[in-house]
Amino acid sequence: MANFKGHALPGSFFLIIGIWWSLKYSLRYTSHKGKSRKLNYYYRKIEIIDGGVRVFFAIVGILAEQFVPDGPHLHLYNDHDWIKLMNWQHSTMYLFYGLSGLMDMLTFLFPVIPLGLDRLLLSLAAVTEGILFYYHVHGRPPLDQHIHLLLLYTVGAGAISIFIEVFIRDNIVLELFRASLLIAHGTWFWQIGFVLYPPSGGPVWDQTSHDNIMFITMCFCWHYVAAVIIVAINFSLVCGVVNQLKRPRGGESIGIQKLTTGSNTHEALLNDTDED
Amino acid sequence: MANFKGHALPGSFFLIIGIWWSLKYSLRYTSHKGKSRKLNYYYRKIEIIDGGVRVFFAIVGILAEQFVPDGPHLHLYNDHDWIKLMNWQHSTMYLFYGLSGLMDMLTFLFPVIPLGLDRLLLSLAAVTEGILFYYHVHGRPPLDQHIHLLLLYTVGAGAISIFIEVFIRDNIVLELFRASLLIAHGTWFWQIGFVLYPPSGGPVWDQTSHDNIMFITMCFCWHYVAAVIIVAINFSLVCGVVNQLKRPRGGESIGIQKLTTGSNTHEALLNDTDED
Amino acid sequence: MANFKGHALPGSFFLIIGIWWSLKYSLRYTSHKGKSRKLNYYYRKIEIIDGGVRVFFAIVGILAEQFVPDGPHLHLYNDHDWIKLMNWQHSTMYLFYGLSGLMDMLTFLFPVIPLGLDRLLLSLAAVTEGILFYYHVHGRPPLDQHIHLLLLYTVGAGAISIFIEVFIRDNIVLELFRASLLIAHGTWFWQIGFVLYPPSGGPVWDQTSHDNIMFITMCFCWHYVAAVIIVAINFSLVCGVVNQLKRPRGGESIGIQKLTTGSNTHEALLNDTDED
Amino acid sequence: MANFKGHALPGSFFLIIGIWWSLKYSLRYTSHKGKSRKLNYYYRKIEIIDGGVRVFFAIVGILAEQFVPDGPHLHLYNDHDWIKLMNWQHSTMYLFYGLSGLMDMLTFLFPVIPLGLDRLLLSLAAVTEGILFYYHVHGRPPLDQHIHLLLLYTVGAGAISIFIEVFIRDNIVLELFRASLLIAHGTWFWQIGFVLYPPSGGPVWDQTSHDNIMFITMCFCWHYVAAVIIVAINFSLVCGVVNQLKRPRGGESIGIQKLTTGSNTHEALLNDTDED
Repeated sequence: MANFKGHALPGSFFLIIGIWWSLKYSLRYTSHKGKSRKLNYYYRKIEIIDGGVRVFFAIVGILAEQFVPDGPHLHLYNDHDWIKLMNWQHSTMYLFYGLSGLMDMLTFLFPVIPLGLDRLLLSLAAVTEGILFYYHVHGRPPLDQHIHLLLLYTVGAGAISIFIEVFIRDNIVLELFRASLLIAHGTWFWQIGFVLYPPSGGPVWDQTSHDNIMFITMCFCWHYVAAVIIVAINFSLVCGVVNQLKRPRGGESIGIQKLTTGSNTHEALLNDTDED
Repeated sequence: MANFKGHALPGSFFLIIGIWWSLKYSLRYTSHKGKSRKLNYYYRKIEIIDGGVRVFFAIVGILAEQFVPDGPHLHLYNDHDWIKLMNWQHSTMYLFYGLSGLMDMLTFLFPVIPLGLDRLLLSLAAVTEGILFYYHVHGRPPLDQHIHLLLLYTVGAGAISIFIEVFIRDNIVLELFRASLLIAHGTWFWQIGFVLYPPSGGPVWDQTSHDNIMFITMCFCWHYVAAVIIVAINFSLVCGVVNQLKRPRGGESIGIQKLTTGSNTHEALLNDTDED
Repeated sequence: MANFKGHALPGSFFLIIGIWWSLKYSLRYTSHKGKSRKLNYYYRKIEIIDGGVRVFFAIVGILAEQFVPDGPHLHLYNDHDWIKLMNWQHSTMYLFYGLSGLMDMLTFLFPVIPLGLDRLLLSLAAVTEGILFYYHVHGRPPLDQHIHLLLLYTVGAGAISIFIEVFIRDNIVLELFRASLLIAHGTWFWQIGFVLYPPSGGPVWDQTSHDNIMFITMCFCWHYVAAVIIVAINFSLVCGVVNQLKRPRGGESIGIQKLTTGSNTHEALLNDTDED
Repeated sequence: MANFKGHALPGSFFLIIGIWWSLKYSLRYTSHKGKSRKLNYYYRKIEIIDGGVRVFFAIVGILAEQFVPDGPHLHLYNDHDWIKLMNWQHSTMYLFYGLSGLMDMLTFLFPVIPLGLDRLLLSLAAVTEGILFYYHVHGRPPLDQHIHLLLLYTVGAGAISIFIEVFIRDNIVLELFRASLLIAHGTWFWQIGFVLYPPSGGPVWDQTSHDNIMFITMCFCWHYVAAVIIVAINFSLVCGVVNQLKRPRGGESIGIQKLTTGSNTHEALLNDTDED
């Protein structure tokens, strides 16, 4: 859908999931040490719902792309002409993210499925989005091309960092990175909508101006700064809430949280300092 | 061989080996826990045959490229002109895959050969195919170029993931990924044959249409979706069969299969839940 | 600031931090074995000050870019025109490095923050600088483009090696590599200033000469050689000083330093040889 | 030196070191299990000599580039013109490889130097060679460009695999890979000499023919096949000789060699089979 809504819809999906992930992984990280069997049970349920929501988003996206008034209505070919290829390409992008969501659900439902396949499919969904976008913009005005190709940075960084998660699972740094990339990805879709199809009916941007391209490049960096700040705020909020919940249970648990970093050298550092 | 058969032959080779690998690695993964010395003995035999079949495919491919009626018949140079360079390039591609198959056989026949060299040579065979294809299509019509260059995605992803297998061997995620890439690689060769040399004698595609290029890009993604589904079905079938075979031997073995994931956190998760 | 000072300022910042890091990491590495709680306490303080200095540099840089006489004075848009986009882009670059410095401080102040986020943000600051520079030079003369794009090599190598530090922390090889890249990055900014805006008022370089481009490429390699030599000298100096400080305390500590390499095979090698 | 000798000289250096490395690493790998302190002592001496020889080669190369009759004789700049930049660029390439050889010597002479820096500098020497070659060929005829740029594949693969050796040291797969790349690199320099400056005075190749470019691409792959075969032969020879030397000492040592693979699963496999 080459209009404002066609960019706002996937933008909102990415943004919602990005914010949700920044909360989910912060919660799992900060509450990690006091983990009980009950918590693990709930985490598994959450992961299954997480995957389910993404399947739902993907289906909504595909239906929207296919059945908007000017959509292809599931027709692909007609008298030597492809019908609404852009909508079909967007549907393909949703299809891959939907597959990835399904894989997440299956991984947590059936333990025989090897861990890591869920991350691999998510990474491949990002690669597919990248391939589609890359050839998508051929022959369009420079600003249109540039604003779409900047998405390749979030998509590419996401594909690489998620692929690393196949091997280094449950790494909070990679997970927060993924969340921040997804948030920036979502807000950038909104930005594309505002630039190319101003909803207020304002003047259209000059699509050949080099200055506009330079500004858009910088603006993309600002979006990522905003995404980092959102993730930082969410992490701090979750930390605060988890601390509040832990405190009443007993005095000795205050110190526990300091030790949550597990496999790194923070504890050593801290213990040394505290005892000095 | 710039015709339908010249693409169907390697396509079939890749497809057969891809499907075979998805079965082989699924079988090894699901039957892993109950592994006995006998099983290991058979696995080794299977690996040697696997390599041998690939050497055979490579020889068939080279002979076909050289001795088809319009082939070079092993002549390379003639009166200041190279003879049938495309057939020679295809022969070179087969040669590398043949070398890789030979290395697989040697690795399992002679234990003094370091593990990992087989994966390295397979990865290099993919890189070589990529280099040959990349310079292969210079100066051809846009659709012809594009449809060949899309192969670089499967070749590139394969080269990277197989190179990782040099260090992380026997990782089921990487192995299934490799199988899925090989299947998509094989079906895409068939697709190239159908697009560029329609066997039904139907109308040739317009090789300069941007719409055709956009469709082909999307079609490539669909091929990969199909490959993922084929691997998923094979994995499920193997799981089902292995389960059926294990069940009659005794009641306690039902639970064993749940624990096959070994080095990951699935068991912990499961145990926690089961006992809750 | 498209003038000599606008390149000398960030160049000096990068150079100072690069030299400082080569000293800091050499010191931590050579004094490692005899580490006491007191030392760790001081190292933590140093890391916080290190981050603070970088935040200070970033603020100075942003203020300089914004409030030089011909700067944008925080105005971004004015009557359908962007104001001084280059200054805004430089400010964005400083902003990311400032954020990274802030993250370093927070990481060592609040142990709940996962280790690795500081490295991730530093790596992203380098990526951002790379993206900004890459689109920055569009449409400029060849030599101007080339001399700026060479920065992408140090930026790219830095981004990759710092990203690896997310996972492999406190690795002296990566840390000295980072320091050397930063030094070369800093001296190259000075070089850009001298080539494009000769402060002596000498003749401007011919910006279209292929020979000049070839010389500049080679000159870039020489800068890196110089950076390697600076790091080597600093490492040797620190080694010498640490050895001098250790010696008077007792005879047995002479041999200790040889064993500092910890996780590698140097000791085995040495012990074998010594005892032969 | 843009003539046959100017390519034969570095080609011979690369070829000699590549063959030497394939022998050295094969020997270390096959004789590993029976390693004694004496052997380690000799290995260290060999590494120092190895680095020394490379420093010597680099000095010879630099002197040859500078003081051939038509060389720059250490003059860089003369009346607004750069003198013999190509010779200077080649000297820079030698300089980096010389630095890397020096680092190897220092690493094995002074144990305080962290292991890995030698590999890092070798990797950077390859990157530098790549950067120099990449901008080197600008504006030359297509075949000249292409034949030089193919070097980037061996240089790039070498840079990546040697960088991995910073972290995964003494890995026989990576070491043999490095040796094979170096051999192919060396023979390719000879090939460039034969193609661009036929020493027999034969007819010069048509530098714009697309067929020549396609043949050269394929020929590059054949060079790599030849390099793999050379490494394989050297490995087999060393294995045979080490086996011969081990046998007379006692009957039980025959089985030892089978177990040399150490950290991989070969032994398990073998033991299982043997006992079946």
